[in-house]
Amino acid sequence: MIQSRTHNCNELRIGNVGERVTLVGWFENMRKVSKNLGFVILRDFYGTTQLVVETEEMMNVMDGINKESTISVEGVVRERSSKNTNLPTGEIEVVPDKIEILGKCIYNALPFEINQSKDADENARLKYRYLDLRNPNMKKNIVMRSQIVAELRQRMYALNFMEITTPILTCSSPEGARDYLVPARNHPGKFYALPQAPQQFKQILMASGFDRYFQIAPCFRDEDARADRSPGEFYQLDMEMAFASQEDVFSIVEQVLPPVFEKYGIYKEASKAPFVRIPYLEAMDKYGSDKPDLRIDLVLTDATEVMQGCGFAAFEGQTVKAIVVDDFTATRKQIDAICAEVEVQTARKGFWFRVDENGEFVGGIAKFLQDRKEEVIKALGLKNGDFVGLAAGKKLEAQKTAGVYRKLLGAASEKHMKKDCYEFCWIVDFPMYEIGEESGELEFCHNPFSMPQGGMDALNNQDPLEILAYQYDLVCNGVELSSGAVRNHDPEIMIKAFELVGLGEADVKAKFPAMYNAFCYGAPPHAGIAPGVDRMIMLICGEESIREIIPFPMNKNAMDIMMGAPGTVEQKQLDELHLAITAKPEE
Amino acid sequence: MIQSRTHNCNELRIGNVGERVTLVGWFENMRKVSKNLGFVILRDFYGTTQLVVETEEMMNVMDGINKESTISVEGVVRERSSKNTNLPTGEIEVVPDKIEILGKCIYNALPFEINQSKDADENARLKYRYLDLRNPNMKKNIVMRSQIVAELRQRMYALNFMEITTPILTCSSPEGARDYLVPARNHPGKFYALPQAPQQFKQILMASGFDRYFQIAPCFRDEDARADRSPGEFYQLDMEMAFASQEDVFSIVEQVLPPVFEKYGIYKEASKAPFVRIPYLEAMDKYGSDKPDLRIDLVLTDATEVMQGCGFAAFEGQTVKAIVVDDFTATRKQIDAICAEVEVQTARKGFWFRVDENGEFVGGIAKFLQDRKEEVIKALGLKNGDFVGLAAGKKLEAQKTAGVYRKLLGAASEKHMKKDCYEFCWIVDFPMYEIGEESGELEFCHNPFSMPQGGMDALNNQDPLEILAYQYDLVCNGVELSSGAVRNHDPEIMIKAFELVGLGEADVKAKFPAMYNAFCYGAPPHAGIAPGVDRMIMLICGEESIREIIPFPMNKNAMDIMMGAPGTVEQKQLDELHLAITAKPEE
Repeated sequence: MIQSRTHNCNELRIGNVGERVTLVGWFENMRKVSKNLGFVILRDFYGTTQLVVETEEMMNVMDGINKESTISVEGVVRERSSKNTNLPTGEIEVVPDKIEILGKCIYNALPFEINQSKDADENARLKYRYLDLRNPNMKKNIVMRSQIVAELRQRMYALNFMEITTPILTCSSPEGARDYLVPARNHPGKFYALPQAPQQFKQILMASGFDRYFQIAPCFRDEDARADRSPGEFYQLDMEMAFASQEDVFSIVEQVLPPVFEKYGIYKEASKAPFVRIPYLEAMDKYGSDKPDLRIDLVLTDATEVMQGCGFAAFEGQTVKAIVVDDFTATRKQIDAICAEVEVQTARKGFWFRVDENGEFVGGIAKFLQDRKEEVIKALGLKNGDFVGLAAGKKLEAQKTAGVYRKLLGAASEKHMKKDCYEFCWIVDFPMYEIGEESGELEFCHNPFSMPQGGMDALNNQDPLEILAYQYDLVCNGVELSSGAVRNHDPEIMIKAFELVGLGEADVKAKFPAMYNAFCYGAPPHAGIAPGVDRMIMLICGEESIREIIPFPMNKNAMDIMMGAPGTVEQKQLDELHLAITAKPEE
Repeated sequence: MIQSRTHNCNELRIGNVGERVTLVGWFENMRKVSKNLGFVILRDFYGTTQLVVETEEMMNVMDGINKESTISVEGVVRERSSKNTNLPTGEIEVVPDKIEILGKCIYNALPFEINQSKDADENARLKYRYLDLRNPNMKKNIVMRSQIVAELRQRMYALNFMEITTPILTCSSPEGARDYLVPARNHPGKFYALPQAPQQFKQILMASGFDRYFQIAPCFRDEDARADRSPGEFYQLDMEMAFASQEDVFSIVEQVLPPVFEKYGIYKEASKAPFVRIPYLEAMDKYGSDKPDLRIDLVLTDATEVMQGCGFAAFEGQTVKAIVVDDFTATRKQIDAICAEVEVQTARKGFWFRVDENGEFVGGIAKFLQDRKEEVIKALGLKNGDFVGLAAGKKLEAQKTAGVYRKLLGAASEKHMKKDCYEFCWIVDFPMYEIGEESGELEFCHNPFSMPQGGMDALNNQDPLEILAYQYDLVCNGVELSSGAVRNHDPEIMIKAFELVGLGEADVKAKFPAMYNAFCYGAPPHAGIAPGVDRMIMLICGEESIREIIPFPMNKNAMDIMMGAPGTVEQKQLDELHLAITAKPEE
């Protein structure tokens, strides 16, 4: 008998009627009808089965058992008189003649009801995670996470990617987020660091001759929690390809992700290859965001020129971006709520007016536009019934504010948002350099280690502000899943790229010495990306909090309150590590 | 064109003759015949292809390129006049008319020759790991590691195990090896610890209702290096099953491991299910080890009684164990070397004599046994030509010494060691308690959290020294791959088990509070094991050092000399962590 049972709790069907069976599981509940009649729900990982207690003897046994204890039950399968068609085992019940306690729940009452655990206080849920995880909905997320990760691996194997595990105890990164440090016992005053990502290792693997690398890679950043970021650790589907271009990386991602989203997702439709590609500057201009939610079909129009001199102070001398929404049915109250939310999210105001059924401009800032109705209609392509949202400021401010406004208007307008799908896109052609806002000097715009488009020639001959990088972001439904790049694998180009911002070889070497050294021994061109596994699973499961899709997450304060981590350690441990604590430990 | 090539370097065959192709890879070598004739080896991840440089123009290009640079080559495929049948691409060659450098190797000379890297100094290999990994033999190990791990996962999935990833930032373990600590920035004076194993989490997963869990789990122990242990991190095929017995666990391991060993191993034969099971006490008695190498068919015999009073001082009052080897052909010199090695490994002497072709006892300690030849022959079952190895001491010492002696005699005797196979066995029935050598009191023998055989009844009614635990070791070819156990999931039995050694509930709770709390809310019986992935891969690849099967291992001094880990950190980082260094940092 495997795992102490003849069947699991989701296995018995009408065809099993008459069989003698042994089931094991958790005693979920009993509806007691009389002293010798009761209906018991037995639950295991696979499902539930109804037991019918029909004798006083069996009832006495059950009466002595607390709910959530584990039990073993022997009995005979019987057809139910009133069947439950919602339940796979709903056609049968088991009449037990032997019940044995396997693991007592010693408490009469639980911190929360298992089946309502998602409504319980989050601290209680995390402290008693083992009870929370017994909730079928929570369990489903964890099962799905496991299946999704398995399927991602499977699809990467099928494309001849090799999973290579890179070190977790490694060295501190000179840029990026804050590292978690690990004191090195045998090296006083020195520390390992947990990797923020296996970036250097995967690039060194390329220089080592590997061709298609991937890893479901644990990454560690000592940053504070957010809804979509657990403190501590998170996972990436990290990948890198030798001799590869942007096209190669796009092709892999476009083959791997959509089928997984369609198979497991709450939405059953995902973008097909090729994904839409939007140059960074166009994304900012059309969507006011470098992570546009393409489920929304609204785009930004420029209203700067037509608004100049209209008398509305907020528009004077500013860039003005408009979002025109046709068939917009929101009430005044809803519009006010949207504008308030724009201000919460951007600290800038959203403005608006409507074109009524007679072609009149009404509401909001309409009165400032009466003198230029025709020009505005022409500039924004308006027709009767349109709603116009407006945002103003310096160019980037106006874009970003309008981008937020666009998302809120889309979410409020059924016609303009296709909710039940996964819309992927690539943001491409990020500028390599920018003029730093504070410094006023040329700076790297994003990653200094990405390959400039045009290579050495571009660095030598183009206006630096015109140079684009082979750098790309993967976006799904307005969520940035990853940045990726064709890497700069050529030490000479790397040094030249650094020289343009006033740095040199020493700076390159200082940042990533191992990688730089490796590249001096003959590296292939290479490119990669690392979509965030946790964020993808959130999207697939349709969850808003990352803690719903991690089995044992830390709380927002970076504590595992179930395990008691972090905790105090013994003086002996500190001595071995040559460390002293300089602050009064918290209680 | 995918990854900048039409074909990889292991792809072109006679059928491709006449095609125009593009190849990319590393310039491995050129045999220059004249100023316009040379044979170039181009290498990539997949293999090598020969290029024939036939023009002065192309030769000039190649002359300007250092070996190990990456290049792109365009040309036409031609049939070779002299074919190399050892090489998949050996029937063809490519005549390039365009060669482009993709990634310069800026050095004329390498720290070691790629194809001889395994003979290079280990520090150089680790510092230039990216060059070492270009060696096809090193690469093969890493590829195999990836394939083995993928296949282990596949086989676990096929048996309905779910992979669940457990936290890496967690809390310090109260027993076991030394923890790696991670200071918690937001909690002055507190530390996370990296998990020595996901033991508590997997048991809590069982209490959470999961049925078949596994994980290729990173584990961390701050211990010094050994040949079969890398400092820092290692991996386990961690698994646990709810409602499971020892039989369930054995069955899974026996289904999963042998096919993987047979498919990838240097030996093509592995034990079939069921593996031999040997009770711990019998293993010590028969093999002088709890990790016997069953490829050797020799067993220990007891010679204590027949040796008493023989006049050989080392035997007086001691347990004497004998290993009888028939058809032993070793020379006197070889025997002396074996005995010396016994002493090196055990700090105790190995003794011996032979029975010659006339039935006389000769050599070694033979002279002490002339008065009792018949008794010795009868007790040890000797016949002419037998060699008898002997070890003496207190029982356990005599057993262990004879165990080492047995392995050395087996390795020296072709007849008694079947070298080309993987012999698995289970060591079972470990005693629950023992009398501590130092304390003289009852102590736990191994893991206090394993289930005693007979449960509460045994604890109440049996002599503690007679109680066995449901604890087992998995052994292959003399290497312990893992310990496992049916866990004690019952708080009452746990407390009782601790009471027998003078401890109580407080001690149980103090050791593993989260697990103990979870078990109070109804836990299933459960059992598991966690075979060491690195050790399995060493066995499969036939490597003696763990550094041969890890892409980026630390050196014996727990340093990654390629990355420069561990390293110094900035004062600001220490301040944020509320730490001060109490020792002078090493240079």
